[in-house]
Amino acid sequence: MKVTVSRKAHFNAAHRLYRKDWTDIKNNEIFGKCANPHYHGHNYELIVHVKGEIDPITGYVMDMKVLKDLIKDEVEHRMDHKNLNEEVEEFSDLIPTAENIVIVIYNWLKPHLAKGHELTITLYETPRNYVTFSK
Amino acid sequence: MKVTVSRKAHFNAAHRLYRKDWTDIKNNEIFGKCANPHYHGHNYELIVHVKGEIDPITGYVMDMKVLKDLIKDEVEHRMDHKNLNEEVEEFSDLIPTAENIVIVIYNWLKPHLAKGHELTITLYETPRNYVTFSK
Amino acid sequence: MKVTVSRKAHFNAAHRLYRKDWTDIKNNEIFGKCANPHYHGHNYELIVHVKGEIDPITGYVMDMKVLKDLIKDEVEHRMDHKNLNEEVEEFSDLIPTAENIVIVIYNWLKPHLAKGHELTITLYETPRNYVTFSK
Amino acid sequence: MKVTVSRKAHFNAAHRLYRKDWTDIKNNEIFGKCANPHYHGHNYELIVHVKGEIDPITGYVMDMKVLKDLIKDEVEHRMDHKNLNEEVEEFSDLIPTAENIVIVIYNWLKPHLAKGHELTITLYETPRNYVTFSK
Amino acid sequence: MKVTVSRKAHFNAAHRLYRKDWTDIKNNEIFGKCANPHYHGHNYELIVHVKGEIDPITGYVMDMKVLKDLIKDEVEHRMDHKNLNEEVEEFSDLIPTAENIVIVIYNWLKPHLAKGHELTITLYETPRNYVTFSK
Amino acid sequence: MKVTVSRKAHFNAAHRLYRKDWTDIKNNEIFGKCANPHYHGHNYELIVHVKGEIDPITGYVMDMKVLKDLIKDEVEHRMDHKNLNEEVEEFSDLIPTAENIVIVIYNWLKPHLAKGHELTITLYETPRNYVTFSK
Repeated sequence: MKVTVSRKAHFNAAHRLYRKDWTDIKNNEIFGKCANPHYHGHNYELIVHVKGEIDPITGYVMDMKVLKDLIKDEVEHRMDHKNLNEEVEEFSDLIPTAENIVIVIYNWLKPHLAKGHELTITLYETPRNYVTFSK
Repeated sequence: MKVTVSRKAHFNAAHRLYRKDWTDIKNNEIFGKCANPHYHGHNYELIVHVKGEIDPITGYVMDMKVLKDLIKDEVEHRMDHKNLNEEVEEFSDLIPTAENIVIVIYNWLKPHLAKGHELTITLYETPRNYVTFSK
Repeated sequence: MKVTVSRKAHFNAAHRLYRKDWTDIKNNEIFGKCANPHYHGHNYELIVHVKGEIDPITGYVMDMKVLKDLIKDEVEHRMDHKNLNEEVEEFSDLIPTAENIVIVIYNWLKPHLAKGHELTITLYETPRNYVTFSK
Repeated sequence: MKVTVSRKAHFNAAHRLYRKDWTDIKNNEIFGKCANPHYHGHNYELIVHVKGEIDPITGYVMDMKVLKDLIKDEVEHRMDHKNLNEEVEEFSDLIPTAENIVIVIYNWLKPHLAKGHELTITLYETPRNYVTFSK
Repeated sequence: MKVTVSRKAHFNAAHRLYRKDWTDIKNNEIFGKCANPHYHGHNYELIVHVKGEIDPITGYVMDMKVLKDLIKDEVEHRMDHKNLNEEVEEFSDLIPTAENIVIVIYNWLKPHLAKGHELTITLYETPRNYVTFSK
Repeated sequence: MKVTVSRKAHFNAAHRLYRKDWTDIKNNEIFGKCANPHYHGHNYELIVHVKGEIDPITGYVMDMKVLKDLIKDEVEHRMDHKNLNEEVEEFSDLIPTAENIVIVIYNWLKPHLAKGHELTITLYETPRNYVTFSK
């Protein structure tokens, strides 16, 4: 009797997509306006999905307040109102595409879940573009 | 050639989360403000997903009008504008968490589907919290 | 140069619509299933609009963090996870229709705004029903 | 390390549901008002999901601009502001139900994806009815 | 103490924008793909706003169930799953642009409202285009 | 017979809120994490409302395609994927709060509208914060 519980959160951040080992021309060719050296930004909408057995005592897979606080501590605290390239260590050598961000968030949250809980992360970069990751 | 058809519906209900065999203090410790003895409530948004083969005659997996009416008869009729703890028999001994509600809805709908149709239920308790269940 | 700043918030609550001086039959006739004596509930979505001059020093009409905290203290604290009929004093003699709730919220917030700030309140009772009030 | 990237798009179209080999009475009995000979229409909301490995050079599964343009060329160009029954060849002998449309879209897009990329299509016919297909 | 109550509804319809007294070339020049002779269609989202005094007996400006039924009878019944050009008399000599539709809906609903009730109509033709009308 | 037509658009941008004539400490005290020197960003959702008479020939207040292109040329072109502080001249001496941005957008668009057309601008900085301006 496994149920998936999902919690939405959000954070605002600046980023740019570029490779340090490429010229500006090459970065612009591949990443277009996302390579703007002055950065741009997004309201990231995050959905964290945790699948597991219902605890017969509480009727919860996981207390949503605990999940909400976990997202706040592990994700929002590190990302909200930040420049991902400059201020989030994981992106010092990793391009902060939505694909890479979603894996970084997965790795931050997974160690805090109970054994047997399966994690999936969905991240909206814009209302029309989003990514999903689970192992 | 299996396609999943999904239909959204909603109902408003009151509930509280508590165990009769726990003290008020214990209930408050575990369920927080959700344990309020005077109840609180939600606009539940329900999505019913049915996966099956397309009927080559009609082009339908299942007539959406039939699914809409089934949800109305089996779910909305029992839940809408009700107090889940007091008025829905399934919750006389089961805590009406979103996790338990989604399984109860699954069990109400499943017997009415055609053989071979797979059922998944998604239930939003708030715009930021939702659960999903399938067998 | 007046601009309107708007902030969304939400709270979950239980209520019922009925008059103590009417019979159950009369209440049911007028308020239908909203009169259910066991209560039902909603996810109320609230939008608070404040219209005023932009402060040339800060570029703000009003600091949104201040407005967010004001809504939390004056509205969410009193309403969230509450039974409006039983636990909110203003509704001891006032039917908690969306129309009456929106005026109660207006009256809670207005005294805390700066002079010259105009207040409008929008309240969604369901995704399809909402009300708006300003003086 | 497979991630799913999803891109939303939309198109407006007219259609009707009916079988040429059935009488009007029979079509009306099975398809109801969807059989209206004068057509009706929808704002179709489309979500295209592509699952694949992240390219370690770019951090992309697939460049979203490329996916956006592919949807424009292969789907919007053929469907937007069209009458599906009269102007889209695939529906000359196939009823344009949401289930059949989603498979047609899948077949248009799949040949243009890289090997190893898995495709899933979601199509909203109305805000309350949608379908999903993958092989 | 005037409050505005708002109710959302929707209907699906086909239409085309063209003038009978213009050539196809001229219609195409002015209305673009909206002039397609085979029609296209939309999921119209309608919001009906009624502003009036709160009835001190019921706490209602207007019973939302009455407003819901009025919209069903006067608007949805005439528009839903219809071809606006061919099947709605008001558009036999009037181009069914969103601007004209919103005035037609206003004129259908206004005579059914109580004296002193002010009516505003909002109509979404697509999620990105909408119109609003009141007198 | 004035109708308001509204068109939604969006752009992504980076910004920070600070005064050059204040210390970092003072900026942080007033603008909090919005003052982050490394910038943060948003998906700005823009709604442009134009109120005017319906042209009896076309049934339009204003051709939505023209309005869409006007927003693209005058707003998106200047703002999308830009750093507002560094790359948009209007903000070289003006703090890019939502309140100031909405007035800048108003001033860009107004000269391009027909005489007698009234303009209102709504700008969402996040899904929960937005501003509205008209003269």
